[in-house]
Amino acid sequence: MQPEKRRKKSLKQRLVLKSSLAKETLSEFLGTFIMIVLGCGSVAQAVLSRGHFGGIVTTNVGFAMSVVMAIYATGGVSGGHINPAVSFAMCLFGRMKWFKLPFYVGAQFLGAFVGAATLFGIYYDGLMSFAGGKLLIVGENATAQIFATYPSPYLSLENAFADQVVATMFLLMLVFAIFDSRNLGVPKGLEPIVIGLLIIVISSSLGLNSGCAMNPARDLSPRLFTALAGWGFEVFTTGKNFWWIPVVGPLVGAAIGGLVYVLIIEIHHPDPDLEAEPPEDKPEKCELSVIM
Amino acid sequence: MQPEKRRKKSLKQRLVLKSSLAKETLSEFLGTFIMIVLGCGSVAQAVLSRGHFGGIVTTNVGFAMSVVMAIYATGGVSGGHINPAVSFAMCLFGRMKWFKLPFYVGAQFLGAFVGAATLFGIYYDGLMSFAGGKLLIVGENATAQIFATYPSPYLSLENAFADQVVATMFLLMLVFAIFDSRNLGVPKGLEPIVIGLLIIVISSSLGLNSGCAMNPARDLSPRLFTALAGWGFEVFTTGKNFWWIPVVGPLVGAAIGGLVYVLIIEIHHPDPDLEAEPPEDKPEKCELSVIM
Amino acid sequence: MQPEKRRKKSLKQRLVLKSSLAKETLSEFLGTFIMIVLGCGSVAQAVLSRGHFGGIVTTNVGFAMSVVMAIYATGGVSGGHINPAVSFAMCLFGRMKWFKLPFYVGAQFLGAFVGAATLFGIYYDGLMSFAGGKLLIVGENATAQIFATYPSPYLSLENAFADQVVATMFLLMLVFAIFDSRNLGVPKGLEPIVIGLLIIVISSSLGLNSGCAMNPARDLSPRLFTALAGWGFEVFTTGKNFWWIPVVGPLVGAAIGGLVYVLIIEIHHPDPDLEAEPPEDKPEKCELSVIM
Amino acid sequence: MQPEKRRKKSLKQRLVLKSSLAKETLSEFLGTFIMIVLGCGSVAQAVLSRGHFGGIVTTNVGFAMSVVMAIYATGGVSGGHINPAVSFAMCLFGRMKWFKLPFYVGAQFLGAFVGAATLFGIYYDGLMSFAGGKLLIVGENATAQIFATYPSPYLSLENAFADQVVATMFLLMLVFAIFDSRNLGVPKGLEPIVIGLLIIVISSSLGLNSGCAMNPARDLSPRLFTALAGWGFEVFTTGKNFWWIPVVGPLVGAAIGGLVYVLIIEIHHPDPDLEAEPPEDKPEKCELSVIM
Repeated sequence: MQPEKRRKKSLKQRLVLKSSLAKETLSEFLGTFIMIVLGCGSVAQAVLSRGHFGGIVTTNVGFAMSVVMAIYATGGVSGGHINPAVSFAMCLFGRMKWFKLPFYVGAQFLGAFVGAATLFGIYYDGLMSFAGGKLLIVGENATAQIFATYPSPYLSLENAFADQVVATMFLLMLVFAIFDSRNLGVPKGLEPIVIGLLIIVISSSLGLNSGCAMNPARDLSPRLFTALAGWGFEVFTTGKNFWWIPVVGPLVGAAIGGLVYVLIIEIHHPDPDLEAEPPEDKPEKCELSVIM
Repeated sequence: MQPEKRRKKSLKQRLVLKSSLAKETLSEFLGTFIMIVLGCGSVAQAVLSRGHFGGIVTTNVGFAMSVVMAIYATGGVSGGHINPAVSFAMCLFGRMKWFKLPFYVGAQFLGAFVGAATLFGIYYDGLMSFAGGKLLIVGENATAQIFATYPSPYLSLENAFADQVVATMFLLMLVFAIFDSRNLGVPKGLEPIVIGLLIIVISSSLGLNSGCAMNPARDLSPRLFTALAGWGFEVFTTGKNFWWIPVVGPLVGAAIGGLVYVLIIEIHHPDPDLEAEPPEDKPEKCELSVIM
Repeated sequence: MQPEKRRKKSLKQRLVLKSSLAKETLSEFLGTFIMIVLGCGSVAQAVLSRGHFGGIVTTNVGFAMSVVMAIYATGGVSGGHINPAVSFAMCLFGRMKWFKLPFYVGAQFLGAFVGAATLFGIYYDGLMSFAGGKLLIVGENATAQIFATYPSPYLSLENAFADQVVATMFLLMLVFAIFDSRNLGVPKGLEPIVIGLLIIVISSSLGLNSGCAMNPARDLSPRLFTALAGWGFEVFTTGKNFWWIPVVGPLVGAAIGGLVYVLIIEIHHPDPDLEAEPPEDKPEKCELSVIM
Repeated sequence: MQPEKRRKKSLKQRLVLKSSLAKETLSEFLGTFIMIVLGCGSVAQAVLSRGHFGGIVTTNVGFAMSVVMAIYATGGVSGGHINPAVSFAMCLFGRMKWFKLPFYVGAQFLGAFVGAATLFGIYYDGLMSFAGGKLLIVGENATAQIFATYPSPYLSLENAFADQVVATMFLLMLVFAIFDSRNLGVPKGLEPIVIGLLIIVISSSLGLNSGCAMNPARDLSPRLFTALAGWGFEVFTTGKNFWWIPVVGPLVGAAIGGLVYVLIIEIHHPDPDLEAEPPEDKPEKCELSVIM
């Protein structure tokens, strides 16, 4: 049995990733995939049932809980960013190394694309029967908004940009608060739930202008998928070329949101290094540096 | 008093089950019973009130919370599977012994049948008055969908099968994540709540095609009950003999879902056995190894 | 200062109740008062706004959360029963001494009556303007259902009685599960939240027949208040003298619910007294016995 | 590098507030700002979409969760009052020093004003297009109720005042209960969530009369902003000069609510100082005193 056990072990070990970065990349791929299938799926159910089996409550709660599930599935491995704007802010404020950023972001865009394709498959019959086989971007039979966000008719591009900046600012400001153990302190293991509640409130309050994407991967990858899958490249030009706003706006908003939280709250916390000054004689406490 | 106390004790002990398997079988019976009465009950209230006292929000939340309650009632005894697809996946991935499977599954099917009968009793007057004493399967006065799931008109059998596979894949993938203590880690005792949130999001996003059964016992037993109780055996033939899809699809999906989670996340966790080997020279630090 | 401090202390001490039973009685009064104002208030808002500012979701969630709040306000003092059926079951299964029962039940009935009167005051203008100054029991301008429950038109008395028995059976069965620390185990301090979720699911699934009172004090005291406040004593005769069913049914159901949980789950837990006896030869490992 | 590091440190230190009161003032400003943007934003989304993307559920949940987020962002620094009535009650019952009150209240009023202005900016295009460029206070195209509360048509001033007193009484009574560790005890770090549930139930049950402000800063500052921003000073005279009721009523209600909780529950808790004195002769049993 000993040799067989060893062979079995080596088989498993061939599958095991040794590189931490490879694990994290795979994890971000899975997390973004989960968020898109379940999150955009909530929109799909509301749209395709013409409101009979879904509405603002189920889409807001559904998208928020899809993020909760994605973070529970990946948070212990890669932190559960599932959002290039979050990863960018983490790098900007020294919570992640910059060299990891392209891997995280690439995995997020890829996961979102595969998620959109999976959702398209699950609802293939529904999408085909909804508008007599047509895949439309505007009008009452439109289905493109299942995958990507589109602006309200009243919205100017300036207001749209401000909207994405401010919404993502609130997202990051409060994500920083939720993980700030020197503030009130969300109990360990419940941070994903509180982030879910955060997404519920943001999408209930700042979702009307343009659907509250706050995430370049969540918006651009499914939009690209719809362009290729039959809705056509008008998904990019619709709404005065709106497509770049949920890509660029969140990056700006994430930087501002992190900065606001750091400047108003975090920087003023009593410094544990200064108060803990004497312990320079016991340097073995390095294992306490488990930040998250 | 001493002899009487002894007699009392032996009376109680005659009722106490010594066999762990017997306890677990009884527990799975109770759990599935609870889920069906309260879960299908949520659908009953929405259908029988023609939407006045229930809708997509109350049925999604009601079914999810019925699962939460079933797990709190049985989780400490039998793990609270209440789903043959879950028990199957637990066996497949070495989390339960195979010989227990028929007992678990049998109890689940029986509990679901008794639950359906109980619900029929509670809403007997309501069911009788709803369609002038008729028990219908299709049309606006249909009530069979209170008990079992039926496909949307647009749905092909292929898409229906894929739907049940993918939905149950997400269910198991995330159940594995929720109980994976080396990932982010749901706090002990709150796993049922997070599973409830998971069911809310899946039924909000993947429920439109065919009601998102994801559970052979939840679907087949109540369907059999309706066949016997007056709806007739058309409950099996309706929807191109749809009945077998929520039975077989979940088993396939559960296997895939577990596999995806294990291959993408679980297998790559740092192996505590390998890392715990060397520190035999500093054994006092063992209590610091509680990382999360 | 010393004498003044002493005088102050004795003033405070004159207010402090020394008797534990007096504290508990006062606590149950407050808890039931909170539940009625906020719980029946949720119904009032839905009825008086004719559905514009409330509906099945807000009444179910509102009533459930009113119970959550009542338990947080009183649970540490009196256990937060706020329901004679719960207190009765607690006595029946040895969790409370029988001599306390009349005090608990009296406080609950009184608290519910004062709560109904308070709610009447808060919504006095709304009630007066709703039906041109009339306080009605039936019809589309009825407001009596804000305070007490009434049966659906289709419901026979037999079915109504079974409904209250079964609903309260589920309530107690799951309350016993939630507080059973040898089962899965709700984290300390979160039991009220899980009870709130339980009430959401029961009122979503078993609320259609007759409003799911499950509590003699919650139903009878506000009904008596409405009889005296202007709705008239038809509140007792309406629905074939329905009034006694939410009084007697819950007592029967509570006894059955507790019994079912004890017989199917609790009695079979491994007995810690019996198992803890032998390990006297290896006492150092005791701290490892935290199983779950 | 040493000098540069020092310079950097001193740069950071120049930004760091040394005064605890300054930190707390800034924190209350931020918290109230968050609550108004996200809370009033939930109302904005419901109003501006004419109910298509919001309603009573999203506004109640959105406002409640905006409070949850505000408390998570500020609770560890300033306690997360974000409400002059709460700060007033904290002073009144010896939980905060009186000299801090004007700083807290000033920050709250200012934060609410800036929050209202920010929300106005985010929804500028929506507000402009909603009523053809007009900013109205009454009628079906009114938008002033996004920012401040207005009474129901049926409501007398006496009832309105009683409404704000009683609603805030319940708010403070239960906030005191939630933070009373000698009662049932909300787990550390979850108090904001339970406060969110409390706000959901109060706004579901006592919100119909006049929108349930319960907070002078939440109501008066946004009202002043609308007066200046184009709605005109009729925002103060509308509803028989209703504006002062959500300012004065909450202060009265907060005092009563705190008093009720203290008199009925808190004062009767066993005094740990008195009970902890004698047990010096039996110190081994101390670890058994964890009662609940």
